[in-house]
Amino acid sequence: MLIVQKYGGTSVGSTERIKAVADRVARTRREGNDVVVVVSAMAGETDKLIRLAGEISDSPPEREMDLLLSSGERISAALTAIALNELGIKARSFTGRQVGIVTDTAHTRARIEKITATQVKKAISEGYVPVIAGFQGTTETAEVTTLGRGGSDLTAVAVAAALGADLCEIYTDVEGVFTTDPGIVPEARKLDKISYEEMLELASLGAKVLQTRSVEFAMKYNVPLVVRSSFSDKPGTLVVMEDKDMEKVLVSGVAYDKNQSKITILGVPDKPGIAARLFKSIADAGIVVDMIVQNVSSDGKSTDISFTVPRPDIQKAVRITEEVVQDLGARGISVDNNIAKVSIVGVGMKTHSGVAAKMFETFAEQGINIKMISTSEIKVSCVIDSKYTELAVRVLHDAFDLAKGD
Amino acid sequence: MLIVQKYGGTSVGSTERIKAVADRVARTRREGNDVVVVVSAMAGETDKLIRLAGEISDSPPEREMDLLLSSGERISAALTAIALNELGIKARSFTGRQVGIVTDTAHTRARIEKITATQVKKAISEGYVPVIAGFQGTTETAEVTTLGRGGSDLTAVAVAAALGADLCEIYTDVEGVFTTDPGIVPEARKLDKISYEEMLELASLGAKVLQTRSVEFAMKYNVPLVVRSSFSDKPGTLVVMEDKDMEKVLVSGVAYDKNQSKITILGVPDKPGIAARLFKSIADAGIVVDMIVQNVSSDGKSTDISFTVPRPDIQKAVRITEEVVQDLGARGISVDNNIAKVSIVGVGMKTHSGVAAKMFETFAEQGINIKMISTSEIKVSCVIDSKYTELAVRVLHDAFDLAKGD
Repeated sequence: MLIVQKYGGTSVGSTERIKAVADRVARTRREGNDVVVVVSAMAGETDKLIRLAGEISDSPPEREMDLLLSSGERISAALTAIALNELGIKARSFTGRQVGIVTDTAHTRARIEKITATQVKKAISEGYVPVIAGFQGTTETAEVTTLGRGGSDLTAVAVAAALGADLCEIYTDVEGVFTTDPGIVPEARKLDKISYEEMLELASLGAKVLQTRSVEFAMKYNVPLVVRSSFSDKPGTLVVMEDKDMEKVLVSGVAYDKNQSKITILGVPDKPGIAARLFKSIADAGIVVDMIVQNVSSDGKSTDISFTVPRPDIQKAVRITEEVVQDLGARGISVDNNIAKVSIVGVGMKTHSGVAAKMFETFAEQGINIKMISTSEIKVSCVIDSKYTELAVRVLHDAFDLAKGD
Repeated sequence: MLIVQKYGGTSVGSTERIKAVADRVARTRREGNDVVVVVSAMAGETDKLIRLAGEISDSPPEREMDLLLSSGERISAALTAIALNELGIKARSFTGRQVGIVTDTAHTRARIEKITATQVKKAISEGYVPVIAGFQGTTETAEVTTLGRGGSDLTAVAVAAALGADLCEIYTDVEGVFTTDPGIVPEARKLDKISYEEMLELASLGAKVLQTRSVEFAMKYNVPLVVRSSFSDKPGTLVVMEDKDMEKVLVSGVAYDKNQSKITILGVPDKPGIAARLFKSIADAGIVVDMIVQNVSSDGKSTDISFTVPRPDIQKAVRITEEVVQDLGARGISVDNNIAKVSIVGVGMKTHSGVAAKMFETFAEQGINIKMISTSEIKVSCVIDSKYTELAVRVLHDAFDLAKGD
């Protein structure tokens, strides 16, 4: 097998940990596999570099931040290659450029345009373990770029796709993907297997394990992912294409997100093009709107529009909304910061009805009022009063029998 | 004027110091100059990276060390570019590769083969201050290399040569080149001007200000150098081609080197080819021999050969010498670790006689015995007992009136 192993910041957080990573790679080699390693910066290193830049400027040029931050992964790649050689394993470090990761020119959040991986393939065929500095690429004109949050995961998945790897293992400090946050529900169970679609919903709903972009990329190129801990030998969670087994399970997990705020515009005249105008203004400001719900107003002539935005963007969003409201002649707006979004995710919903109803029923039994509802093929999300978040997660986990394995 | 300014590790040792560097660059710009900046790694950063590698391996692969260590200069280049932009000065960082510094493949001590500097020239013409990460280049096959000790100085001089710069300023933590070590002779005087040849002799004789390679490069391409402090506004020392003024001065400086050992082979048969054989074996072992003196032996049929090697290489040198001695049928060898080399340097010696005699006379007056003598056109070196080093430096400084300016 050809396995891509990605190690996060805590997994390479010290020279001792880097040696442990080398041991694991050595073991994987001994089991007869070819291995490609992708590393993040050592834990704390990126923060240190950001702090240094912050001491100099409040708005450092993004191009310079990219050169600055890409150094962290180069350091851990070199150190990991040294550790492997020390164990007698032939290993060579690779920078984003040496891998041939070509990105667009959007500094600090570049998108991968292509990966040649010629030198990496050659190194593998010569018996080397390539150790790739994650998170970075270069543009066609040789500018250094970085891939944004979760960029090293994306490097790993993209390299796995380019090499046609059999497996991409994401080593982190948790043991896999859980049915919900074990901090809220102690009985939360680690999932053995989950579909890309479910993982995508969980990722975008606030489960911190994998970034949305990496999962999308893995799904697009059908790269089997494993999320597992570098501090244990437990098998982790496999993220793959949906299969028949998965559809038997109604709900795979419960996610929550306390980091949103809700804006409601009251009494919007019922004319075409109004929603378009509002959300274009908000999007132009770089604010990502999550849920949008439109209700017919009580008088039948106007509507109420509610939507949620990330909490840090709320002031900007309110300012933009107020301008639009004046132009529209709407009655006014209200803001609610005390909300949480609680969601259930599962591919089984595609073929089973009644899942949403059961969720609403469970909330009703506990006296939890639902403020907004949004659904997709494999997800139901409800916005509720934030004080009920933990209660809601617990009762849903229980109602859908998630503590019990398949 | 086009000025290349190189700032060493202490000059960029903190974000405060980096801001001070930016201020100086800004001032140089305001005076109407184009500026190119070359930076070392922040003081302590390179040592930290070496320590991390040392925690993992006693003999890390040189290729990996190069990727590791080149990160330090990239970080300071990015931070310096950020600081300049913060002052409203258009600045862009450049890595060795982006400068187009192509080296051979000798990792950790690569030699520069060519510099294109296309992007740097373009940036200057567009009004940018290029900020170049020193110490590094890439091979024809895009491997990252470093240039060895003093590598950032070499980057600065080589870039200045490639750009046809009017001046290359080397900012460091001393105020220039002194007539001798002010730690030994408090009256030591900062030189306003010195020739490349003199600087070269002083550099190779152990004055730590500039590395030999940088001075050689500057001389070859006739790049005017200034060595000065980044902590003051004093003008520093100009290093340029020899001129008429310089020849009036007999001696420019007194240097010393306590880091050598002396080996003497006794009773070497007086046959051709013997010295060649000995010094080839030592050179093959990578040991750099400094002084070689051959005396006719007392019996007139054999000779004694004495030579000096760097102290850390003495054991290896003795082992090699002993093998050769056996083959030659020489009488034996003696080793002296308690030596120091004290030298006087000055282009005036070319046209004035009696300088060496005055040096010997000065030593004789103080009862300092001379063990070896070696001369070049602009230098006289004597090996003496190491305990007399400071005394010898002081009396020579006095004898040649070095405390007195021109």
